[in-house]
Formats: sequence, C-alpha cells, structure tokens
Amino acid sequence: MKFQELKIKASDGEYKLEFVDNAIECVLACDKPENLFFLVDEKIWSLYPDVSNRIEKSGAEYLLIHASEAAKSYGEIEILLDKVLEHSFKRGQKLVAVGGGITQDIVGFIASIVYRGVPWIFVPTSLLSQADSCIGSKTSINLGRRKNALGTFHHPESIYLDLRFLGTLSALEIQSGIGEMLKVHIINSIESFNEIAQNYELLRSNQDIMLQTIFNSLFFKKGIIQQDEKDTNIRLVMNYGHTFGHAIEVASQFRIPHGLAVTLGMDTANYISTLINSKTVEYYDLYHPVLMANLNGLPQVHISKEDYFMALLSDKKNTPTERNFVLLNSNGLPTLQSMPVDSMIPSDSYEYLVGILKSC
Amino acid sequence: MKFQELKIKASDGEYKLEFVDNAIECVLACDKPENLFFLVDEKIWSLYPDVSNRIEKSGAEYLLIHASEAAKSYGEIEILLDKVLEHSFKRGQKLVAVGGGITQDIVGFIASIVYRGVPWIFVPTSLLSQADSCIGSKTSINLGRRKNALGTFHHPESIYLDLRFLGTLSALEIQSGIGEMLKVHIINSIESFNEIAQNYELLRSNQDIMLQTIFNSLFFKKGIIQQDEKDTNIRLVMNYGHTFGHAIEVASQFRIPHGLAVTLGMDTANYISTLINSKTVEYYDLYHPVLMANLNGLPQVHISKEDYFMALLSDKKNTPTERNFVLLNSNGLPTLQSMPVDSMIPSDSYEYLVGILKSC
Repeated sequence: MKFQELKIKASDGEYKLEFVDNAIECVLACDKPENLFFLVDEKIWSLYPDVSNRIEKSGAEYLLIHASEAAKSYGEIEILLDKVLEHSFKRGQKLVAVGGGITQDIVGFIASIVYRGVPWIFVPTSLLSQADSCIGSKTSINLGRRKNALGTFHHPESIYLDLRFLGTLSALEIQSGIGEMLKVHIINSIESFNEIAQNYELLRSNQDIMLQTIFNSLFFKKGIIQQDEKDTNIRLVMNYGHTFGHAIEVASQFRIPHGLAVTLGMDTANYISTLINSKTVEYYDLYHPVLMANLNGLPQVHISKEDYFMALLSDKKNTPTERNFVLLNSNGLPTLQSMPVDSMIPSDSYEYLVGILKSC
Repeated sequence: MKFQELKIKASDGEYKLEFVDNAIECVLACDKPENLFFLVDEKIWSLYPDVSNRIEKSGAEYLLIHASEAAKSYGEIEILLDKVLEHSFKRGQKLVAVGGGITQDIVGFIASIVYRGVPWIFVPTSLLSQADSCIGSKTSINLGRRKNALGTFHHPESIYLDLRFLGTLSALEIQSGIGEMLKVHIINSIESFNEIAQNYELLRSNQDIMLQTIFNSLFFKKGIIQQDEKDTNIRLVMNYGHTFGHAIEVASQFRIPHGLAVTLGMDTANYISTLINSKTVEYYDLYHPVLMANLNGLPQVHISKEDYFMALLSDKKNTPTERNFVLLNSNGLPTLQSMPVDSMIPSDSYEYLVGILKSC
C-alpha cells in the first residue's frame, strides 16, 4: 500500500511523512545499519516479533524503552541518555524512535540535546502519534510534577506511518487518537467536523476510512503548523481542549489517556464558552454527542479539586497578567481568548467535568 | 564608553552585542523588571555590591548560581530548573545570565528547553565569555564524566559587554581568555596572529588594546559562525586546540582552566602537525613562544594517560570510521583533517604535552 505522502515545511528545511506497508524496512532502506540507533517501546518489541527480529538481524544498535509517563521526565531521561552514549552513539548516526507519543517525546528530546542535535526518524505506533503528534516538531518533557514544562522543537527527518501497528491497540487507545482527530477537524471547519462525526462509528472497522481520516487530520494540522511553527500565534489554537485536558490528566494521575482527557477538555471548553457567549450554545450541542461517544468506557477516576486547580493555573500558556484559554467563538470555531486572572473558569470547569465524569 | 556594536546573523534572526558602561542598567532598560528573571554567578553577586543592590532594588526575580564545572551537568541542572519554575518563571519572561562561560552554558541550556525555548540576555563577566563564547549560540552541558556531550544552539537576544568585570579576574583567568583570543587570531591569518603577539604584554595594562583585541576576536568569530551557524563544516576549525584541550581538561579533573587547556592543545596540535607535514615546522616555531608565555603560572597537575586517551577518543567530532583533528596546513593555518582510527596521535600528543607541562 502506497497511499500518499505529506511534505512539511519547517524553518530548517522540509521533512516528509510516508504511508507505508513495512515501516522498519523503509527505515533500514534509508541508511546503513551502522548509522542507525533504534530506541523501541518494549511493548512493540514483544508484540511484533517480526519487528524485533528484523532490527536484531540488521546489526543496528538498539535499546528498549519503558514508555511510561514517568519515563518522559527530565530525571529519568538522564539514565537513557547515559545508556545511549555508553552504547557509543556517535555524531553521524541517527536515532530511530519506534513507539507512541511518549517514545516520540523521549527520543525527540534526546535527539535535540545530544551533541547539540542529531537527526532522527520516527515510526509512530499509536493512533495518537500517527494522526497528530508525529508532525509539528514538538517534544514535551515533564519536570517532576510539572507536565510538559520542558521540551524543544526538533522534527524527525522522516516519518513512516504503518497502519498495522493499530491492530494491537485497545479500544480506549483508539478513542484517545480519535480525540485528537476530532480536535483538528473541529478547528478546521464545521464541515470537516460533520464528516468525521458521520464516519465516527466506521473508523474502527473500515481501514480505508481510518486512513483517509488520519491523512485529513495531518493535512489540516500541516496547514496550521506551517504558518506558525514555533507556536506563537495561530498554532496556539491547537491547544483546544488541552488546557483543561492537561489539568484533568495531572489531577487523575494520568489514569485518563491523553486524547480522552482532551476530548473531555474540549467539551468542558465548549461548556465554558456557552457561559461567556450564548451564540456558542448551538455548537456545544452539535459537538457534545460525538465527544460523549468518544468517552465511552472511560475509567471511573477521582479528580482532586486542589490538583486540578494547581495544574490549570500553572499552565505554561499563561503570562504574569493573563490566563489564556481556547474557547469557541460565535461561529463555533476554537479561538484563543484571554481571561482576567480572577475569572470563575477554574471552578466552573471543575464542577462541569466532575458531572460529566459521573455520567460516563 | 560606547565603543562599537556587533550584529550577528542567525537562522532565526539577528542578535546584537553592545560594548557598554553599565551592563545591568542596559538590561533593566530593555524590559520591565517583572519580565526579567536574573540568574547570577554568586561570585559576581558578592564581588559587585552595586550589581546585587541594583538587581534587588529593581524588583526582578533572581537566583544565584554556584558556577562550577559540576554545576553544568545535566543532573545538577534539574535542581536549578526546579527552582526557576518554583519561582513562577512564566512564558513572556526572559532569563538574564550574569557570569562567565559556565553561567552562560547553564542559563542558555535552561532557556533552550524551558517551555520549548524562551529568550535570554547575557552579561558575560569573564574574558573567555566576553571575547569568545558569548556569540555563536552554543550551549554545552556535561553528562556525568562526558564533557559537553549535551547542548543546544540557542543564542541570547542581546549581549551587554562591560569591561569593568575583568577587574576582579585572576592572572590565570585573563590568560584563559587570551587563549581563545589567540586561537581565533591564528585561525584568521598570520597577520592577525602577529598583531596580537605584538600586543600580548600590553593586553593586561592597556584597556584600549584589550577592548580592540576583544572586538577583533569577536569580529573574526562572527565571520565564521555566520557562514556555518550549526557547526557542520568551516566552523569546525574553531575546535583548533579543543580536541586535545578538552582531553587535558578532563584528565586534569578541570584543574587547568579552559583557555589554558586550549593554549596547550593548540601547541600540541601544532607539534602533531610537524610530525605529519614538515612545512608546518616554521609555524610551530612562530606560535610556540607566545603560547608558552600564555601558560605562565600554570598549576602543576598530573595528566593520567588513561583518562587522557579515553577523553580524546570519545571526542564527539569523531564518526564511527574517522578521527577528526584540527591541525596546521602548509600555510600555517588550522584546518580540519581526518586521520585513520589507528593513528599514533593519542600517544604522540600525550608524550609531548607531558613534556611541556614539566617545563612550565
């Protein structure tokens, strides 16, 4: 299967994403094994013996990663950095990440700081990383309890997107990826939201529809990141659902998967929008059923009010004088809006999302 | 005193260096105190009460840095990162580094990874940082015993160069800075080397000559880094004296100051050049007396052969198949040269530099 290719323009050149049938073969075809250093999610390593056998057989260096939220912290990364250098990783070699979003963050961050930056290749294996995070150059690293407080912009030189890795994902992992796809479809237009909403039930059973929806999601995102690579103006709209979503993730101690926290975060942002602007009510109503469907099977978790407030208020988009939220405008489209520091948004949003969680 | 200004072109825009009379006032004039977050070398804080008083009075946030070689390690930086965020450093604020090269490395690295990069301002206080490291965008961080294995390219938005900070430096610290000035003068041309050699004795006593020599050093360096910002080709020549120098620093457990290790490294590189190319002998002879003069008062240290070899061979400029050294060409100018992996350079250079150290 050779579907389509995307080229993304960045300030330091163009990088490419290819839809392929066998991602590992594509990686091995782009450079000599002695120039490649694989960092592979240990789950993928054991779930896909053909992948692990092929990498072992190639003779390339490799290390396995335990891809947990704790592993993408600054402190934990030191241990992995040390292993990579202990295995004689040299300038002139490339790192290859095989895994989901956490693996991407860890390897992308390492690639951006080892020897002041080395090239890397990415084989995303979760729907979240395939449909969203694999493009856009961001790496996000935790510092202690501060989620994503650190990071860099350092895109892979190539991304190989292989849909068969979706076969071993759980229903919630698929929904997590769909959460980010819903987000970029809503940002793009009401029409594109209607399209994904219509296809929602078919995504899991029809690979062609899944493929087309992933492609559309990446295409919409590409349009935004090419205009604002470094996240200083229009790209900030991609934080739709994320300010509340991150706070939910932190306060649930990461028991709610990222894309589901974002789904809940978008619905919460839409609800807050209705309190500020009554013209958004019809859009809240339009999006709400699909967002709720995407929360199906969400685990019951307690969200501590104190943790939620602290995480929400320490959001890195805030400046000393303003709190920034992405809320719906009168046309139902997410827009960055500044709110006074003393707004009721934290408590209103907490009450709302606790209610939603109870109803799930 | 308003001497001159340098503007340096980088891929993400231009940044400026100004020679000024009162650097702290210049920093405070460029933004509101609530947007500035000072990170100051604790030695400068106590040596210059007018600096500490002025920063305290401004109301800007500040933290002191213990600027040791150990402090610029990945692990130690986590503690400082945590303090910076604990003091509510936010997007929209700027970090301000006041100190020498280690402070520059620490603050530049932090600025490049906090919130995926924030702006910073630099007030260099050592001769080494004023005459060399302050421009060029590099940050260098140690990982365990691996010197400068990590880092980023992230230049300050402004650099304020205030010569009065040189007043409290020791003779060896001045020589350390002169070491890097000698380096870039040799790289530039035989004529510029002859000029700095002629002025060598006056540098410490004549501020105008010091100022002009710092300016020339920065001007020569600017010419190189603007052609090769990311250190992939011609800028590699700036590693002249550094491959041997770093190994000397590591093997002496950092008891030899950086610019003096570089001075010794240049002389060693020149000696190795004479073994490979007899046309370089006259240049070895030309440079040798000035380099020796700059090693005056060097502390007696033991250089472990094992540590020296290990540091030399793990140099990050090496690739899996080549060892790269900057050696003199037939015209006496430093040039990047690839050597076979099994060359005699490690042992020849060790024997030579041990002899030089004994004669100091």
